[in-house]
Amino acid sequence: MGTMKGAILSVNPAACIVDITHQIPPQDIHAAAFNLLASYQSFPEGTIHVAVVDPGVGSKRRPLLIECAGQFFVGPDNGIFSWICERENKYRTIHLNNEKFFRHPVSATFHGRDIFAPVAAAISLGSAPAELGELVNDMIRLESLMPKKGEAGAVEASIIHIDRFGNCITNLTPGDLSDDFARNTMLTVNDRQIRSFRRFFAEQTTPADEVFLVLGSAGFLEIAAENSSAAGILNAVRGQRITLTKNASYSARGLDGS
Amino acid sequence: MGTMKGAILSVNPAACIVDITHQIPPQDIHAAAFNLLASYQSFPEGTIHVAVVDPGVGSKRRPLLIECAGQFFVGPDNGIFSWICERENKYRTIHLNNEKFFRHPVSATFHGRDIFAPVAAAISLGSAPAELGELVNDMIRLESLMPKKGEAGAVEASIIHIDRFGNCITNLTPGDLSDDFARNTMLTVNDRQIRSFRRFFAEQTTPADEVFLVLGSAGFLEIAAENSSAAGILNAVRGQRITLTKNASYSARGLDGS
Amino acid sequence: MGTMKGAILSVNPAACIVDITHQIPPQDIHAAAFNLLASYQSFPEGTIHVAVVDPGVGSKRRPLLIECAGQFFVGPDNGIFSWICERENKYRTIHLNNEKFFRHPVSATFHGRDIFAPVAAAISLGSAPAELGELVNDMIRLESLMPKKGEAGAVEASIIHIDRFGNCITNLTPGDLSDDFARNTMLTVNDRQIRSFRRFFAEQTTPADEVFLVLGSAGFLEIAAENSSAAGILNAVRGQRITLTKNASYSARGLDGS
Repeated sequence: MGTMKGAILSVNPAACIVDITHQIPPQDIHAAAFNLLASYQSFPEGTIHVAVVDPGVGSKRRPLLIECAGQFFVGPDNGIFSWICERENKYRTIHLNNEKFFRHPVSATFHGRDIFAPVAAAISLGSAPAELGELVNDMIRLESLMPKKGEAGAVEASIIHIDRFGNCITNLTPGDLSDDFARNTMLTVNDRQIRSFRRFFAEQTTPADEVFLVLGSAGFLEIAAENSSAAGILNAVRGQRITLTKNASYSARGLDGS
Repeated sequence: MGTMKGAILSVNPAACIVDITHQIPPQDIHAAAFNLLASYQSFPEGTIHVAVVDPGVGSKRRPLLIECAGQFFVGPDNGIFSWICERENKYRTIHLNNEKFFRHPVSATFHGRDIFAPVAAAISLGSAPAELGELVNDMIRLESLMPKKGEAGAVEASIIHIDRFGNCITNLTPGDLSDDFARNTMLTVNDRQIRSFRRFFAEQTTPADEVFLVLGSAGFLEIAAENSSAAGILNAVRGQRITLTKNASYSARGLDGS
Repeated sequence: MGTMKGAILSVNPAACIVDITHQIPPQDIHAAAFNLLASYQSFPEGTIHVAVVDPGVGSKRRPLLIECAGQFFVGPDNGIFSWICERENKYRTIHLNNEKFFRHPVSATFHGRDIFAPVAAAISLGSAPAELGELVNDMIRLESLMPKKGEAGAVEASIIHIDRFGNCITNLTPGDLSDDFARNTMLTVNDRQIRSFRRFFAEQTTPADEVFLVLGSAGFLEIAAENSSAAGILNAVRGQRITLTKNASYSARGLDGS
């Protein structure tokens, strides 16, 4: 949002500002949380991330600064940064309550412009986190990214994001798969079973399965479809449960000839 | 538009360029005018705003530079900057007719690239407005932002913008409301009466009205709905008339128990 | 994509990064190729363009650097830069195979972040193209931009892009038109004949044809409609054939009174 860039440049005219994405749907904290999670590791040390998906603006929800992974994260206390904290495990959270760093008058409807942007600009000029507010340790969190153990060795996982291509990003990582995924494991989504794993989107596989798994760039397994939307084909929605199961019957029958 | 950024950087490689928004519908001068109005005050002194919603490109419509509020505004003479001028009252308008500062050959279909961007870059390098063209005083203007007095103390206002959340931004400001809005005044939109005012979007109010007024970040009263589109609920469109009336009958009946 | 900007800034924190467009549909190599073609000439010498519409990521498709027109182009070998090469004629192509310049580990699903962005950043810091890989001369190309000679002096052309206004950009240039287009030539699209040429979009012409030709800012003739989508009116799609013919019968009848 240009207004926030103006507020940043008003404090630090030499700030280098880049946009991460323009595709977060209104009020969609989960989509913002995923985009932050997928991108922060490619930014250099000292980067200050500002995020403002903020339906609770003006209420008692706190403005936060999080120091994590050598970077700074400024935004509302609504879970938007919690997946990064969960992955990194080590972080510090500061409640931004030093109004000296705010843009006045502070509106009740746009803290992005009046709190987050000027505080981020102050950090870029060298203000120490301790000046900006007080340490807290009760940040709001989204549900965990960790899949759960199910029955009979199954893994209960979920779709945590659907990207603009229709790829369904799961909270599964390669460690959740058997070494021989295609023969011994399958993923069930809406009663549809996925047994195919590709190394890259356009890989030619036999059989040429319409829907397949691939390791996405954010480090998670994604359900994808060649030149099509996997979410559309599977009628999948974000948050949906998916199940990874040992494909016992399959091996028992020896269909692969082994 | 990247092409304009290239044209700016070709003149001033050290220019700091930020995008205000990517969400102006094609040819929508009013949406551009509102976005400029809502954002210019957060930018630092000396900022050069370039706007290119320009259906009249190539015709006799003039390219303009406006000096206002310590900032510069470069674009077509089609009203895109008139709301800023109306708010600030004090400004100078220059018809950009010194072709020395243009990118040649000048196309008849993209003055953003061939006139506005290179002129903006020249200003960023220190060119004086007087070098760029001649003072004029007959800028094209959009309809005024001022609400009108109606009958019996009513105020006739309008919806000047609908944002991507479906919030309806009006041309009413807090001064148009009584001190005790919820008891003494109501806003009528398409035969629907709005009596609720919240300090922020997520405020819990009694009764829990579906649609309410809130003071938006651009300084105008906005009609909003919790986690929903007010424009959708009200079937409201931009430009639509709305009426603020004294709620005489309501008080007379003493429904609030006072 | 913000992730790529992070990868660039991680290598060269002083890089000046601008976005060309956020409106390329998923996997649409042709739309990306057109946007690059329409914008590169407005950027200064030495600009490094990075493009990542890349459905073949992870397969054997090569990462390329193209040196052309005093600028650099980094991206996948899928034709995305071939229209620029066709226009400029003179260029050098380098297969980016020096992994020293990559971001490790290199994923199989996002070379924009792991190869193109860090290589572009290395170039911005002065790395010579010869260090980055090996010269090749068999770049993948899109179909040619050149219209073909048809029967009886006709020109067989096509619609190469449809922009967000619904303007249909053709591969015809002014040289393909007769000096007196409106009297002697006509363009046929889906059995509809277009005989009107305007100098700019809002030009008032007699007769007031609904659909007309105009010279667009990328140097191509565009089919446009006043305040409307020409693509919608004509039911036109990208890639569609169009025909420019001598309007012999028209002249013979002397309908214009000459």
